Amino acid sequence: MVAIRIGKLYGIGVGPGDPELLTLKAFRLLQSAPVVAYQSANDRDSIARSIVAPYLTGNQIEVCFHFPRALDPEAANQLYSDAIRPIVAHLAAGRDVVVLCCGDPLFYGSFMYLFTRLADRFETEIVPGVCSPMAAAAAIGTPLCYQNDIFSILSATLPTERLKAQLINADAVGIIKLRRHFEKVRQILGDLDLLSRAKYIERATAIDQKIIPIESVNPHDVPYFSMILVPSQTQF
Amino acid sequence: MVAIRIGKLYGIGVGPGDPELLTLKAFRLLQSAPVVAYQSANDRDSIARSIVAPYLTGNQIEVCFHFPRALDPEAANQLYSDAIRPIVAHLAAGRDVVVLCCGDPLFYGSFMYLFTRLADRFETEIVPGVCSPMAAAAAIGTPLCYQNDIFSILSATLPTERLKAQLINADAVGIIKLRRHFEKVRQILGDLDLLSRAKYIERATAIDQKIIPIESVNPHDVPYFSMILVPSQTQF
Repeated sequence: MVAIRIGKLYGIGVGPGDPELLTLKAFRLLQSAPVVAYQSANDRDSIARSIVAPYLTGNQIEVCFHFPRALDPEAANQLYSDAIRPIVAHLAAGRDVVVLCCGDPLFYGSFMYLFTRLADRFETEIVPGVCSPMAAAAAIGTPLCYQNDIFSILSATLPTERLKAQLINADAVGIIKLRRHFEKVRQILGDLDLLSRAKYIERATAIDQKIIPIESVNPHDVPYFSMILVPSQTQF
Repeated sequence: MVAIRIGKLYGIGVGPGDPELLTLKAFRLLQSAPVVAYQSANDRDSIARSIVAPYLTGNQIEVCFHFPRALDPEAANQLYSDAIRPIVAHLAAGRDVVVLCCGDPLFYGSFMYLFTRLADRFETEIVPGVCSPMAAAAAIGTPLCYQNDIFSILSATLPTERLKAQLINADAVGIIKLRRHFEKVRQILGDLDLLSRAKYIERATAIDQKIIPIESVNPHDVPYFSMILVPSQTQF
């Protein structure tokens, strides 16, 4: 009888954009993995892959997957299962697979679609990464939250009244998923007299990072990897 | 005339506990800095220093500083200024200083006491780090927040009614600064029917990490580096 070794699944955070913000552990696992997988829409390059490009060894199998949008949950489930089939095949054949995740794998990341489908079938290890709110604060050079502050991550897609209530109740916030919701958020910040505290940044720590005064942002040109921070005012 | 070079101040996140969770950038700066500074109470070892101990070169100047507690803000200000005087002296003498920060420097860290006093006088660069909520989720193996979730960091020191309101309004939370407030938080989670979702962890990713079922935690033995996560229930 021959024992068949099943591959191990790694979800590794590659950080916010600067390739030097990979952890030593992510770097080690990336370089030793036979298979490297990442998400990418068909017509675009993978951002996660571009972050680690300097470190790829050149003799690794690369797997590109994509989670198409589907409004019907059942259809989505089928599409997602199809999308990760090549990863399952590598794991079943005994090859470890490193899945690259922008920022941190378990923090608003698409890795969770894999995790919920595979972690009960294959040994899985998560390597946490530097997430974008911390990267944004570092790049802007502003302390984010202190002491007993309440810090919240809000999605710009939330309804106006929900966003307002959360902004009033927190001491510091990061607002993500801005894109076509940017102007709504800017208006809300204005209504709450928070505009002077708010900082806008695109692609924090990446080579094409931009910090733009919030009043100068073109609401029709807000990329997915953008964020507004409202840092704490707690004094000490 | 001789131009005098002034040293540069680096605040580097050393991550949550596992030395391999330093970023490549933090590792490079740490090894090249002539002066390494860290906070430590007089009678205890520095946790940040212990995380990077494997990487210290052995011929670096080490500066240990401590921010004593003071109830009077003016007295505190004087004590903090005194505490960082050795760092100022190194910077003024042209030596770069790397300040070690557990987790991320700008996320509930004591680095902010230095930042607010020194960043206007010396060139300052922040290197973001892996923060403890992401490390805790990775260690426990639970997705934390997805899609349009509201994620909040709450301090266990907050009043009961404030904690309850925040727990009701968020989709996922991390509760920090538990220590002597643990039992209060456990009661609140019970009142809100959240105990079955809550996960307790001490020193996530460190060599002495402990994951304990929340009902089994001894409330008299809760360390500072502990956390409760209530992960999102969003389905996808």
